[in-house]
Parts: sequence; C-alpha cells; structure tokens
Amino acid sequence: MTSPSHRFAELSMAQVKERCSADSVAVLPVGAIEQHGPHLPLITDALVAEAAGAALVEHHGEALDLWLLPTLSYGRSVEHEWSPGTLSLSTGTFAAVLADLGRSVTTAGIRRLVLVNGHGGNTSEIQTMLRDLRRAHGLLTFAVNAFPPPEEDPFAGIEQGQGIHGGAGETSLMLHLRPDLVDMDAAAPRLPRGLNKNTHVRFGGSVSFGWLSDDFGPDGYLGDPTQATADAGRRAFAAMTAQLGEQLAEIARFDFTHHATGPTF
Amino acid sequence: MTSPSHRFAELSMAQVKERCSADSVAVLPVGAIEQHGPHLPLITDALVAEAAGAALVEHHGEALDLWLLPTLSYGRSVEHEWSPGTLSLSTGTFAAVLADLGRSVTTAGIRRLVLVNGHGGNTSEIQTMLRDLRRAHGLLTFAVNAFPPPEEDPFAGIEQGQGIHGGAGETSLMLHLRPDLVDMDAAAPRLPRGLNKNTHVRFGGSVSFGWLSDDFGPDGYLGDPTQATADAGRRAFAAMTAQLGEQLAEIARFDFTHHATGPTF
Amino acid sequence: MTSPSHRFAELSMAQVKERCSADSVAVLPVGAIEQHGPHLPLITDALVAEAAGAALVEHHGEALDLWLLPTLSYGRSVEHEWSPGTLSLSTGTFAAVLADLGRSVTTAGIRRLVLVNGHGGNTSEIQTMLRDLRRAHGLLTFAVNAFPPPEEDPFAGIEQGQGIHGGAGETSLMLHLRPDLVDMDAAAPRLPRGLNKNTHVRFGGSVSFGWLSDDFGPDGYLGDPTQATADAGRRAFAAMTAQLGEQLAEIARFDFTHHATGPTF
Amino acid sequence: MTSPSHRFAELSMAQVKERCSADSVAVLPVGAIEQHGPHLPLITDALVAEAAGAALVEHHGEALDLWLLPTLSYGRSVEHEWSPGTLSLSTGTFAAVLADLGRSVTTAGIRRLVLVNGHGGNTSEIQTMLRDLRRAHGLLTFAVNAFPPPEEDPFAGIEQGQGIHGGAGETSLMLHLRPDLVDMDAAAPRLPRGLNKNTHVRFGGSVSFGWLSDDFGPDGYLGDPTQATADAGRRAFAAMTAQLGEQLAEIARFDFTHHATGPTF
Amino acid sequence: MTSPSHRFAELSMAQVKERCSADSVAVLPVGAIEQHGPHLPLITDALVAEAAGAALVEHHGEALDLWLLPTLSYGRSVEHEWSPGTLSLSTGTFAAVLADLGRSVTTAGIRRLVLVNGHGGNTSEIQTMLRDLRRAHGLLTFAVNAFPPPEEDPFAGIEQGQGIHGGAGETSLMLHLRPDLVDMDAAAPRLPRGLNKNTHVRFGGSVSFGWLSDDFGPDGYLGDPTQATADAGRRAFAAMTAQLGEQLAEIARFDFTHHATGPTF
Amino acid sequence: MTSPSHRFAELSMAQVKERCSADSVAVLPVGAIEQHGPHLPLITDALVAEAAGAALVEHHGEALDLWLLPTLSYGRSVEHEWSPGTLSLSTGTFAAVLADLGRSVTTAGIRRLVLVNGHGGNTSEIQTMLRDLRRAHGLLTFAVNAFPPPEEDPFAGIEQGQGIHGGAGETSLMLHLRPDLVDMDAAAPRLPRGLNKNTHVRFGGSVSFGWLSDDFGPDGYLGDPTQATADAGRRAFAAMTAQLGEQLAEIARFDFTHHATGPTF
Repeated sequence: MTSPSHRFAELSMAQVKERCSADSVAVLPVGAIEQHGPHLPLITDALVAEAAGAALVEHHGEALDLWLLPTLSYGRSVEHEWSPGTLSLSTGTFAAVLADLGRSVTTAGIRRLVLVNGHGGNTSEIQTMLRDLRRAHGLLTFAVNAFPPPEEDPFAGIEQGQGIHGGAGETSLMLHLRPDLVDMDAAAPRLPRGLNKNTHVRFGGSVSFGWLSDDFGPDGYLGDPTQATADAGRRAFAAMTAQLGEQLAEIARFDFTHHATGPTF
Repeated sequence: MTSPSHRFAELSMAQVKERCSADSVAVLPVGAIEQHGPHLPLITDALVAEAAGAALVEHHGEALDLWLLPTLSYGRSVEHEWSPGTLSLSTGTFAAVLADLGRSVTTAGIRRLVLVNGHGGNTSEIQTMLRDLRRAHGLLTFAVNAFPPPEEDPFAGIEQGQGIHGGAGETSLMLHLRPDLVDMDAAAPRLPRGLNKNTHVRFGGSVSFGWLSDDFGPDGYLGDPTQATADAGRRAFAAMTAQLGEQLAEIARFDFTHHATGPTF
Repeated sequence: MTSPSHRFAELSMAQVKERCSADSVAVLPVGAIEQHGPHLPLITDALVAEAAGAALVEHHGEALDLWLLPTLSYGRSVEHEWSPGTLSLSTGTFAAVLADLGRSVTTAGIRRLVLVNGHGGNTSEIQTMLRDLRRAHGLLTFAVNAFPPPEEDPFAGIEQGQGIHGGAGETSLMLHLRPDLVDMDAAAPRLPRGLNKNTHVRFGGSVSFGWLSDDFGPDGYLGDPTQATADAGRRAFAAMTAQLGEQLAEIARFDFTHHATGPTF
Repeated sequence: MTSPSHRFAELSMAQVKERCSADSVAVLPVGAIEQHGPHLPLITDALVAEAAGAALVEHHGEALDLWLLPTLSYGRSVEHEWSPGTLSLSTGTFAAVLADLGRSVTTAGIRRLVLVNGHGGNTSEIQTMLRDLRRAHGLLTFAVNAFPPPEEDPFAGIEQGQGIHGGAGETSLMLHLRPDLVDMDAAAPRLPRGLNKNTHVRFGGSVSFGWLSDDFGPDGYLGDPTQATADAGRRAFAAMTAQLGEQLAEIARFDFTHHATGPTF
Repeated sequence: MTSPSHRFAELSMAQVKERCSADSVAVLPVGAIEQHGPHLPLITDALVAEAAGAALVEHHGEALDLWLLPTLSYGRSVEHEWSPGTLSLSTGTFAAVLADLGRSVTTAGIRRLVLVNGHGGNTSEIQTMLRDLRRAHGLLTFAVNAFPPPEEDPFAGIEQGQGIHGGAGETSLMLHLRPDLVDMDAAAPRLPRGLNKNTHVRFGGSVSFGWLSDDFGPDGYLGDPTQATADAGRRAFAAMTAQLGEQLAEIARFDFTHHATGPTF
Repeated sequence: MTSPSHRFAELSMAQVKERCSADSVAVLPVGAIEQHGPHLPLITDALVAEAAGAALVEHHGEALDLWLLPTLSYGRSVEHEWSPGTLSLSTGTFAAVLADLGRSVTTAGIRRLVLVNGHGGNTSEIQTMLRDLRRAHGLLTFAVNAFPPPEEDPFAGIEQGQGIHGGAGETSLMLHLRPDLVDMDAAAPRLPRGLNKNTHVRFGGSVSFGWLSDDFGPDGYLGDPTQATADAGRRAFAAMTAQLGEQLAEIARFDFTHHATGPTF
C-alpha cells in the first residue's frame, strides 16, 4: 500500500503525521456549480479547478511537497442564483467553509494553504479569507487562479476582454477537457453593447460594479463561444498549468522572514 | 453532445430546464474527510458516499429520474477534530451548506432531495435539516445511509455492533473499492472494553452519549479491521446499493398526498 | 433551611460549591410547547419531560447525585410552526440555548449533563449538541427519552408504530398525569393511509424523511387517541421512570476511562 | 375538561383558535438562574417572575383576556457568569429566544405580548427586543418588572437604593414566597463603600456603567439582607401584584390608534 | 508636529503607545442618521453626539486624559426604518460594531471606554454591551447621554415630557448648533393625544412599550418644535456639556476597587 | 434654510422625498482607523476617503445628483489588529454594516450606491458586497478608490510598487491634507527585501497572499515615506479627484439596460 499520489485525503492519519509537515503545501481547488449559458455545463468551474489542482500535484507534488485536498465543488455564485441549475453557497456560508478548512489544515501541522480558484465570483471572498486565516491561525495563505493567463488570450481581439463567463476561452478549455459536455450548437456571440465605450465602468476598468449574470440578458453568459476550439483549449490549459507550477514553486519557498523590511530592497 | 449520465452538474442551464422537473429527484452524496485510524484513508466516508451515489444514478437514473449532485466531500467531523488530517466543517457551517444547497435545488424546480450520507457524524444534523428544508422551501427531503445494511453484517459476532468507525465492515468496503488505500499491516483490534456490559449507555443502546474518537484511545477507531476482506466488502457494497435502489424507488413516488390521515390505514 | 430536593436552582451559590462536584449529574428536562391536535394541550411534551425529570430526582437524586435543572419548556418545533399555539425555537436558537447551558453547567464544576427529552422534534439537534458540548467543554453528555419504552407499547397492534404525535400512548400519559387537560371528545383516529405499505419510507423505516405535522392532514396529529386510557398511561409512566432510573444509574458511573480499547472486549 | 386557568400552554390547538384573538394579551414571565449570594437560591428571579405572572393571570386572566406563557426560566446573566451555579444565556441567544417567541405568538393571532421580567440583567435586551418585535411582526410589545415598586421600598433608608441584588427587598420576597430556600444565617450586609458619594457613577445615577457581580467583592450580592422579613416580603409582593394588575389593565386597552398626534394633547 | 487635540485617531501608533495608558479614557460618540420629521435633518443625533464629544475633549481632554474616537455616525434606528432617509444598523450589527470597537480599545492598552450617545434608540443596546464588554475584556465601560439634562428642560410644561423625538428641546439644540439645517416653517405641534392620561403605559411610565415613530402618525416626530429657540438650545448645550464634564471627571477616577463591599457604606 | 451641500444627512425626511430619486447617486466614503507606522496618524484612510467624497460632492453634486453619506470611519483592518491604536471591524461586522446601509439606501428610493474606499484592506469585502447588495435589493452598486491613480505615481521608481501602506504616496497626501498630523522625523525607508525578485508572490503579482502588517517587521508600514512632499500630495489629490469625477460621471448614467448583449459590441 503506497500513496504516491499526493492526494491528502488518500492518506491515513498515520501517514499525515509522517509525511506532512510545516514545509508542506495544502492545495485546495475551489469551484462552483453554476449556469454557464446553454452551451456549457454547470460543473465548468469546478471541473477546471479540479483539473488544475490534479495537474499541479501530479507534476510537482513530490518536488514541492504539495498535498491536494478534495475539491470544494460548491462556491459562491450569487450572480447566478437567479438561474435554474446554479447551486450556490451564500457569502457567509462560503466564508465559513473556508474558515473551517483553514482551521483544519492547521491541525495537520501544515503551514501553507493555497486556494486554486476556478470561479471569478469566489475571488473577493477568497481574498478576504486569506487575511482572516493568516490572522486567526498564522497560516501562510495564497490564492491562484485556475484561469488561463490573460496575457496569452488568443481571443482578446474578438472579445476585447469581455468574454468573462462562458466565452471563447472557457469554452475552449471545456472542448479540450470534456468535449462531450459542450453544445457548440447552442453557442452564439453574447457581447455587451457599448460597455467598452466606458473608460471606467467596464470589466477591468477602474470602477468595480456589482452585476448579476442576467443583467446583460437572459442567456446568462458573456463572450463569443463560437470562436472556441479544442486546440485553443489545449494550449490554454498548458499555459495555465505551466504558470501554476511556477507560482507554486515560489509559494513553496515563500516566507515572510525572507523579506524583512529595511532601508533598501 | 449528450448527457446520459444523470449527473446534474454536467447539464447546462438549458438542459436543466428541459430535463429536470418537479418529478425529478436530486441525489446529494455527503461524506467526510476524517481520520479513520492508521489503516484507512481520510477520504473513506466521502469515497463510499460518492460510490454509492454514482451506482444509484448509473443503475436507476433514467428510470427514477435521479440527478446526482457533486459530492459534498467535507462533512461535520467534530468527534475527529482532535486528529491531524481531519478536515471538518463546524456544525453551523455544515447546516448552512445544506440549507444553501436545498434552496438552490428548489430554484431548479426540483421537489425531491435525497442526501446519501456516508458519515455517522453527519446523521443528526442531516435529520435536523430535512425538516428545516421542508419547512423553508416545501421540498420533499430524504436521507439514506451509504452504509451496508446492518442486518447483513457478517462481523456482528466478532465486533458485537461496536465496529462503528474503521472496523471490519468499513475496512472491507475499502478493500473492495480502493485496496491501494488500505494498510492492513496497521490494522489491529480496537474493542472498547466492557462497554457492552452496559444495558443502556452503549452503541445502539437507549441512551445517546457524546463521544470523541479519542475518548476510547489514541488510535481513533473502533472495531476489528483485521477481519476485513475484499470479498466481504464486495458483498456489502452490493447489498448497500441494492437497498439504496429500493429506497430510491420508494422515494421517487412518495408524496404526502397519498397518505392523508383517516380513521383507518 | 435545607434543600433535600436535589433541584439545582433551589441551591445557593454556596451550596453549589459544597454539594456539587465532578461526580454530580445535571439533569435537564427539555420539552416543547406545540400543537398536539384538538384533544391534547400544547404543554404535553414539556409536562411529560418535567414529570419524568422530577420523578428521577425524587427517587434517585440522593443515591446518584442528580441535580434537576429548570425545565427548558420551549423546544424546536419546526414541524408544528404552521399551527396557532405552537411556540417554537428555531434550530439555531435551540442549539444556542443548549450550548449556553452546557457551558454554564461546566462552570459549576459538574462533568455530566443529561438531557431528558420529551419531544421527538428535539432529538436530532440534541444528538448534535451532545458531541459539540463534549468537544467544547469536555463534558460527558447524554440524552434519554421521556417517552414510554416502545417495546412495551400496548397500542402497537392498533397504531402499528404510527401513533407518533398525539396518539394513544401520549394521550394515555396525559390522562394519567393531567386528565383535566385532555378532551377525549375531540379525539378521533388519524392514521396515515398506506404509509406502512412502504418498506423504507415510513416511520421507523430505513429512510429518514422531512415532514411537517400538517403534511398528513389539517388536524396535526397521528395515531388513534380514542384508544387511550388513564390506566395505560399510569403503566407507561411507571415503565418510563423505571427505565430512566436504570439509565441514570449507568450514566452516573459511566466514564470513557473504563472502556479503553484493546484487542478484546 | 375545562381550562379556566388562562395558562396558554394548557390549551389545545383548537382552544387557541377559539379563545385567543387579537384582543388577547400573551404574558411571558422571564427569569434567570443565577447566583444570589450565599443566602438566596439560584432560582430567585425565575421564581418571582413566575409567581408574579401566575398571580396576574389568576386575578385578571378572565377580565383582561390574559394568557400566561410558560416561564422562560433562563435569562441573560452575563454579570454572574463567573459564578458556579449561574446558568446564563448569552446576549445573542437570549435575544434569539425572545425573537422566536414573539414570532410564535404572532402565529397564534395574538397582538399583545407582555414580558414580566424578574431580572435586572435582562432589562436592556428586553427593551431592545420590544422594538425589534414590533418592527418585525407588528406586535404590540410591553415589558413590566416583577420587582416591588421602588417608591414603596421600606429599606430605602438602610440600603440607600443599593440593595440591587440579593438585598433586603429580594430576600424579603423570598422569605414570603419560599422561606425554605433562604439561609438567613448566611446573610450579611454587603454595601459598596463610597459609591453613593458619586453624583453620577452610581446605581440610579446619570452614568450607566458595566459591572459584574464580583466587581464589588467575592460574595456576589449587594444590599443588607439581614434586614429582610417575611412580612416585608408579603407587603412587597402585594404591592407588586397590585401594580402589575393596574399595568396590565392599561396594556389590555392600549392601542396606538388612540393616541394619534395632533396640535394638542 | 503636535497633537494637542486629544483626538485619538490623529495619533500615530507610536503616539498611542506613548500617550495612552490604562489611565486613559476612550470617548466614543454614537449617533444615528434617521428621520426627525420635516423640520430637522437626518444627522441630528450624530451631530449632537459629535459636538458633545468634541466639547468634552476640548475642555477636559488634557486634565482627564480623554481620547476622542471617531464618531460612529450610524446607529440603531429600528423605529425609523420605515422612513426614507433613515440609515439604520440592525440590532445585531450595531452590537457587533460596539463589540469590535471595545475589543480594539483594549488592544490599545486603554481600560476605560465611554459611549456618548446621542440617540435614544441606541440606549438599550448600549446598556447591553456595557456589561458584555466588561465581561469579555475587563474594560471599565460607561455610557452618558448627549441629551440636555431633563431636569432643566424649559419645555416640560408645554410638552409634558413627550417631546421625545424632534421636539422643542432637540430643535432648539439644532437652532443653536446648525440653524441652517432647521426648517421652522415645517415645524408644527405633534402631541400624542391622551397618552399622558395613562398612568403606566406612557413615556417615562412604569411600562416599557415598543413603538415605531410612525405609530403616532405619518410625520414621525413627537413634541412641539414650534417652541424651539436658538437661545434655549444654547443654554441646553451648555448644561449638557457641563454635566458631561462632571460625569467624565467621576468616570476618570472610577474603579471598582474603591468600592469593595462591607458592612457599612 | 437651504441645503445646497448635497450632504444626504443634512436633509430632512421631507427633503429626501423631494430631492432624491431613482436617478440619484448615494456616495459613501469608507475609511479605516489603523496604524500607519510612526509617522502617519491612525485616521489616514478615513480622512482621505472623506476628503475625496467631499470634493466629489462639492464639484459634481448638483450636476450628477450625488448625495454624500456620512463617512464610515471604521473599516476592516484585520492585518493591523495586532497594533495598538487600530480600531477594526471584523469581516462579518464590516459586511453587516454595508448590508444594512445598502438596505437603508434602498428605502430612500435611491438606486445607485458608490463606495469611495480609502483602505486597501476593505477592498475585497466591498467587492463581495457589491454583488450581494445588487442581488438583495436590485441596487446598482459601485466601488471606487480614494487612492491616487497608480499610473501617475511619482514614486514608482523608488518604491517599485511596494509602498502600499504608509509609503511616499500616502504620506504625501497627508502632507497636503493635514501636515500637522505627519511626523517626518519618524519616517524611514521600510522596503521588503527581495520580494520583488519573486515573479508571482509579490504585491501586484499573479498570486494573492495573506499578510499582516507586522509580517515584514515591527514598524507596520511599507514604502519610503522620506520621499514624500506636500507638493506631490497636492498633485496626487488633484489627480485622484479628477479621476473620481470622471468615474462618477460614468456611474451616474450607467444602466445595464444600455448594454444588453447581442452578436456585436
């Protein structure tokens, strides 16, 4: 009986004590089950986060002492709660789950916790909890995105940064990972008219704004999934996992004691 | 693109509207990630609950209009929180997650929710939530156990009903489902001395009592896992899934309107 | 001035310090104020729980070092909240009350807390709190039922185990304890048609289900109270208090240290 | 079978519908179980509140359509939580209980709720809830004190208004109501030195201050109980119940519609 | 760079350490933003509380070691939540803010916290928190009113103690402090008819009652603001600040150790 | 009596009804009271947020129908809670305050709420609440920063983007706004050694990480405040208010109905 998989939950209590330490890194994929328009499955974000976490641990588990926690499939999907199919934790519940898991990781003697987040709607509350968990338990806490690096987005010209939910990038990823769950016949361009004429109140602009996914129309997605290809998905996934590997390498050796302030850098 | 799998999260929003209805049954496996002694992995309860749910939907999904929700891997493991490796939601958090998921299922137009529970420590709070969710949303709510039927327990003579955590039955199930995760060398009998001499304060007795899994000793499990065999696990899993199938068949057609009270049965 | 009554709240602070110790057992009756059909009073469950607690302490207080706490008359009656007259604590409130009382008992230096529960709707949340209180404060926690032992139910043939709220057993108890509060003219058989044809989804079956007391009809009770007699109530109360005495005797000497696990029982 | 007692919980659901209406007044005694020094029992406040409520309903139940709810024995005793014996609800729990009971009373179709409060430490949170319950449910909410009217305090000269917990007045009441629970041998004067030299920071002064009952000394009470007599207690109880009767008479006919504002009184 | 202002938030961390100690007194003005009828601004209570706090610290900051915290402008205005313009914290939120600020003050090494309260609707919850904060952190906690002393109310004859919100006294204060924000043309007498005929259920009577500010009429205020003058406001403000100075002088030297109980005062 | 100031709380209830509408924009400055090193006052963030809000409403109140709410001085400062002087709301409290204020603004009939945030530690929870408030009340919700636009940061070369708390930019702003509260003698460079050698785990990098302000050293600030000048502060404030004006102009006319999705932008 061995557990070379670096999947934390496949360890026994005895193995946790033996193999995990203050140098280990707990890796928690966080997803969402939420509507992604008529062409993508509800599981999209959870599936991508899980795939990213699994790839990370497969490639770097041993070298970086990573331990993959079971995916938190359910996330905070307040902007999609209007839609049949969305299974959403409220903000308070989502924060409480992260608080409990952070506390639990501490009990295992692990000092580093990384959330691999597959859903944009989780981001702000995860940011909140990074600091709260550090304060509560002394954990070193980190969050990385299970999204393709935006700087390599091949659809930037077509979608102009507005394919933020169910667009060409996400659809491509799913065509790569689970093509059987994608219905390209149901895909159509859904681009928010005129939004990019704003300088500030736009996606990526200097003004944050609260939006629900039916604010722009009943289809609940934004972007042009008709542009998606499995090949683009394959490249995006490779770029994403490559970046995650680099990120985790830095995380695994990060410690505040290396960065004490002084008069020079 | 088809989704014959009856896995809810693999549907798109459009498919949820088309395929799910008030006659559908949402099936939520609920597990736990918690210490199970030195011989079993942390994931035991989540793994069994997921396997049970998957078997259910594979065999009866189409006939009974079942829809498998993503497993809630994390449960309420207060009695194991002392142990490295346990990843436990507090009681309040666990209840809040179930409340949110019940509300979400309602949004999909589904009226029946079944929790397939793999962890005894979840049971009481699940019972609590069955009623609260029925009151809050009008859902028909049910809970079934992802444990082998106790009446067919082949180890009853040896363990005398006290193999309640990490014992021969659970270990057998794991030898059947994931033998690579079982360390039989670490297994030893761990039987609570004298407890069955009590008439009332015992497992299955008329007095409920609060216990933590280290109350009986530092190994954290109860039972005699040395008796476990893969074959017993295979039979237990078959008995369990057979019973789950029968249970779900009744659930799928259950409605209170069939059982209005009157002067006779 | 003496307080031979073993009623905790009749002690002064000085007496608590003098007479209570880590060997004492705090006994908390927990009831409910909720509709019980047209023939029984709202107070039924609180009254029976209080009578059971009082009998316990009267007969065994000195011998077992029991201390009766004031009855928590209000319980969790979510399944009866639809009805005028029901005075129900929400699940969260009920749990919070038990948490506070458990903490308070700890402050008195007492290590054993027994909840004597008169209402089935309280049961699951009490089970939850037994474990939470043990974890939070190290208390030894127990729950016993202020219901007649089901194995001696004389109405089992007539009600077939479905007289679960306001039926012949409960009505008999009230005819014994407070006949002035029972209106036998308003009693009629209210039996859920066809429910016992189910193998699993039935009271006492292998499937738990959420129900509200008006799910089966507007009268809000289940059973055949027309069968009730004061004499049956007298016998049931005697059986119940006899069993409670046995249970408390075991509780008073229970300790986990007596039951450390090993290779044999 | 009759229920002339005007005890709400002795009614059946059918009787609640028949006998209670929007003109009825629900009367909830609220007590506390808390240390009262070495001479008085923990139950003092709950016992006095219950006695006051019972007297009220006995004398005025029929005339004023009053309905006595079961006593909430447990109160908010934060200032006594340091002491063995005190059984205290936290502020949040206490407020939640009152919120639940207010909601429940509304369900019965009753519009007036009166809290008969026996414990000074409950007062502020009761005041808070009066307004919250009116806002939440449209209830007419009232609070009265189960304390003797201060203007008739025979010990004012000796205690100078500082016998606020376990002093001569409260001890007298208990000598009248339950002399078997009073230990006069343990009574001694416990007067806070110099406090009344303050103009503002004193009991009854213009400055409110947070205090715990051990702030002034380890005995936990304030006043001179050696002055107490059963006769003074009898007179105090009579004065209190007389005043409560007057108060309830006004409450029973109070309605805001009688007091619409205008240019004159 | 100096900070002679005794405004706490104008200190740096270094100055807090240097200048504040266990002898310091933190002074927190607490206001409300709520409707005050058509003639007074929403900010009335926050403005008066802030003015009172500022005056206190200006005159006595150095002598009494007072430190003014930033005004909590928002209060608990449940009785005005029906009205446009009211910006109200719920009871739970208001209590949580006070709990957090109390904890924070403790971190600064300060032992005395005084709430200067400008809004009657805050009073009960502030009282509740005085005790809770003392219990939680050992703080010495106090509350004083930023209302003119009632014993010097020149309008007592006209308003008979019922000018409790937006009446002549409050309007006079505002005519003194910010006449530009008062619209005397909109002022009219709004006196609750017949309320003072009650002996008990009246403002200042022996019965507390829950009220919302539209219970007496749609204008939302009570009193006769037409009587208000700037001169009366000037005198009232002077009387109030004089009293606050006296109160704070007592508070600054108050300690329970000076008042240990004994057989005499 | 006029109120040309566009300060919401200076309006009466009558004026709110008359002057505010669904086209109005409520502007809420949100600050923090927290340590900023030895050279800057605790009030820094609250002061800058208030100054920004005031400038906004002064210049654009009439044109854009802006209404300035009273500053929420207290924010979420979890990363500074270790420090004397910090007065911090917990995450849950901070979210609850924003929830209550959002609900309250809705009651006034206003549909647009803008949070002008002066503290980076508030940002993530504000983002969370933007969406929650939109979902709960249908409000259009926005957040803007009361920080100088980073693209015009004159200290970018020296601080390399790491002057994130108490650095040259913030110190300059304070030298412009309140030079009397700045102690330049206490300022020194506090630069985190080696952090910018990281590609991902750095401020502004692709990995978010939880940090407390004493993680880098006991002084609690990051940056080189010795570079600060009042003139740089004046320019930064001008740039910031200019940008805020542009942002609010877009916000005031923003509506989702203008941006319905379709096949083209």
